Amino acid sequence: MTVVSFADVERAARIVAGQIVRSPTFPPPALSALTGAEVWLKYENMQATGAFKDRGAIVKLASLGEAERARGVVAMSAGNHAQAVSLFATRLGVPATIVMPASTPIVKVEKTRGFGARVILHGDTLADSEARVRELIASDGLTLVHPYDDPHVIAGQGTATLELIADAPDLDALIVPVGGGGLVSGAAVAARALRPTMQVVGVEAELYPSFWNALGRGNLPIGGPTLAEGIAVKNVGRLTLEIVRALVDRMILVDESDLERAVNALATLQRTMAEGAGAAGLAALLAEPELFRGKKVGIILSGGNIDARLLAAIMVRELERDGRIVHIRVTAPDRPGLLGLITSKIGEIGGNILEVSHRRLMLDVPAKGVSVDISMETRGRMHTQEILHGLATAGLASRRLAPTGDADPLAVGAVL
Amino acid sequence: MTVVSFADVERAARIVAGQIVRSPTFPPPALSALTGAEVWLKYENMQATGAFKDRGAIVKLASLGEAERARGVVAMSAGNHAQAVSLFATRLGVPATIVMPASTPIVKVEKTRGFGARVILHGDTLADSEARVRELIASDGLTLVHPYDDPHVIAGQGTATLELIADAPDLDALIVPVGGGGLVSGAAVAARALRPTMQVVGVEAELYPSFWNALGRGNLPIGGPTLAEGIAVKNVGRLTLEIVRALVDRMILVDESDLERAVNALATLQRTMAEGAGAAGLAALLAEPELFRGKKVGIILSGGNIDARLLAAIMVRELERDGRIVHIRVTAPDRPGLLGLITSKIGEIGGNILEVSHRRLMLDVPAKGVSVDISMETRGRMHTQEILHGLATAGLASRRLAPTGDADPLAVGAVL
Repeated sequence: MTVVSFADVERAARIVAGQIVRSPTFPPPALSALTGAEVWLKYENMQATGAFKDRGAIVKLASLGEAERARGVVAMSAGNHAQAVSLFATRLGVPATIVMPASTPIVKVEKTRGFGARVILHGDTLADSEARVRELIASDGLTLVHPYDDPHVIAGQGTATLELIADAPDLDALIVPVGGGGLVSGAAVAARALRPTMQVVGVEAELYPSFWNALGRGNLPIGGPTLAEGIAVKNVGRLTLEIVRALVDRMILVDESDLERAVNALATLQRTMAEGAGAAGLAALLAEPELFRGKKVGIILSGGNIDARLLAAIMVRELERDGRIVHIRVTAPDRPGLLGLITSKIGEIGGNILEVSHRRLMLDVPAKGVSVDISMETRGRMHTQEILHGLATAGLASRRLAPTGDADPLAVGAVL
Repeated sequence: MTVVSFADVERAARIVAGQIVRSPTFPPPALSALTGAEVWLKYENMQATGAFKDRGAIVKLASLGEAERARGVVAMSAGNHAQAVSLFATRLGVPATIVMPASTPIVKVEKTRGFGARVILHGDTLADSEARVRELIASDGLTLVHPYDDPHVIAGQGTATLELIADAPDLDALIVPVGGGGLVSGAAVAARALRPTMQVVGVEAELYPSFWNALGRGNLPIGGPTLAEGIAVKNVGRLTLEIVRALVDRMILVDESDLERAVNALATLQRTMAEGAGAAGLAALLAEPELFRGKKVGIILSGGNIDARLLAAIMVRELERDGRIVHIRVTAPDRPGLLGLITSKIGEIGGNILEVSHRRLMLDVPAKGVSVDISMETRGRMHTQEILHGLATAGLASRRLAPTGDADPLAVGAVL
């Protein structure tokens, strides 16, 4: 018996009904073909704030007594939890304060404010923000809405799995992203009660193997920039660790390239936007396909709040990995018509030019020379060779440049 | 009585069952809040090829006799129709040939090839491609799969509305994108039979008002670059015009900014990817909200094949329109530490710098001066003013640059 019971999840389901989006569960054929499993995807990115956090937030807020509601709540988050608490506190007429580090991107601050909460930007680190939260609890009697380590929150997150099992009843396995463990704990409680034989699998980003370590599977380093910010959690919850230890069958770690492939596959094959953490379930399936081949697998697409420019960069990088977008540098003596010659030659052989940058000032170009960097789309590696060969026979020396894939994709994501 | 009957649509429904994706219909609360109508969205972007065209293609192909199947089919399309014919012909073992203009972007050629069809790139214009198609029909006895003006195709497209009405039974109105008119014709036949009181509304891009003109509503010019390529059709079908005239209640024209707003709203509020044509239904609701306020409105999100970079550009432009992303140019005498001074000043006042471009070679900069272009995210117009004022008091002259919104967004889309 765990600290959250199936009865708690059922009670939570009555609270969320009509308050949050009853998100669809859907079998996407292209993702099944890609992974070799029969995939059922639950679209939690269709929630009002774009993530499952709405469930836990409303259940926690609904549990408060009148006096607590009147004094208000506080949460510490720069992400989806902040927006969920803001939206549902406003809807229930509960004053909400969200503390975020001062460096939080404006778009996240404004979105959270937009749902109605007071936002306090405080401190450089999470520890600073935490100190401020403790002060507010002490001084103003605010109630903390913890992002995961709270029985009401866990029961609320469990309602996603209740719905998923109702919509896809014969699942062999359920794969759930794991940050602080709220979603997977709720999932495991619901799954064990409704479908005891179903495997419950948690997924962590390889850079944040907090549960992996806490469960004694290893002692891996924790930290670093990840696409899956939403599950980049350094500390496990006390309650969530207890539930995960008791009820979760397996943990899988996914690396950044698994996460990128999953985000890309959801966008290109399923036309749905997933943030890195939201795509972790599919990433696990891509990372360990042999574990699930031929099985009926439920995946919670837990959140869709990805910056459009980051998504675009990921999709372009996948084309680069496939050899379908390449970057070349042509260096030649400067003369009129040179750019025209280069670009028409490429066009003739069927390359699509995406970007041209024309330089006369670089150190590796002879003083009277010119260097033209060209990004182009080709039909693949063979076609690229054909184009380079065609340039050479026209007297134009060229070489491949490194794909932008070598750069940090988060440099793009970090802008918003 | 029209050339396609409700019985034809019902027969088509039995053919598509199990062959195509039974796409979900879903009420997205954020879109209802945005438009003032109760929106029900049918996600045809979840079809295997990303668009509703799968329906008409399979129904047409299934209608062919053995000899026709053996000889094969031909279609002319650079878009979603090409992919749908390619996929379902391959699945049914029918050889398919797709003729595309030579200028078709590689990604579309490769996607169509990837589904199994032979692709012939021919000619510069649609007329050239058409001539090639006629040759193939004459020489090889291929059967044409017309993108819209075919009773089987129209009946197939009608199945989308059959499903939509089953999932959202009390609709007051149904809004459908109109290119050649296949989707709206099928929709109207199904709607008239199942729910005679429901208004059926077609949407055309303002730049391609083909049905608008053909129905005698005006004599508007046709042509130009549109975000809604999928409905940029210059000629109406003979059959589709007959059905639209008989059964469609109203046509709405949407301009490019309506289309952009709709694509952006679907991405940011609903985390789903819509191509311009696919978002036309929502665009109509945004363009004419008073027609639908308080009503229960079904919208077919007809396709999701948008290039990620184009989507990103649209989302950035919307932030620019809101004054949340601004571009400024700071011009100053060149001196060490200048860039540091500018950027830290902006950071101090809370602007997020997105891009910096540092120029010494522009004509409008004094010989010993330097010009720094900065793109930054702010909390809005007031905050931008604050930042410009802060720079001025630090002795740095700056001015706003035009948003990229003034450039052609299709310049980005055209790259793929």
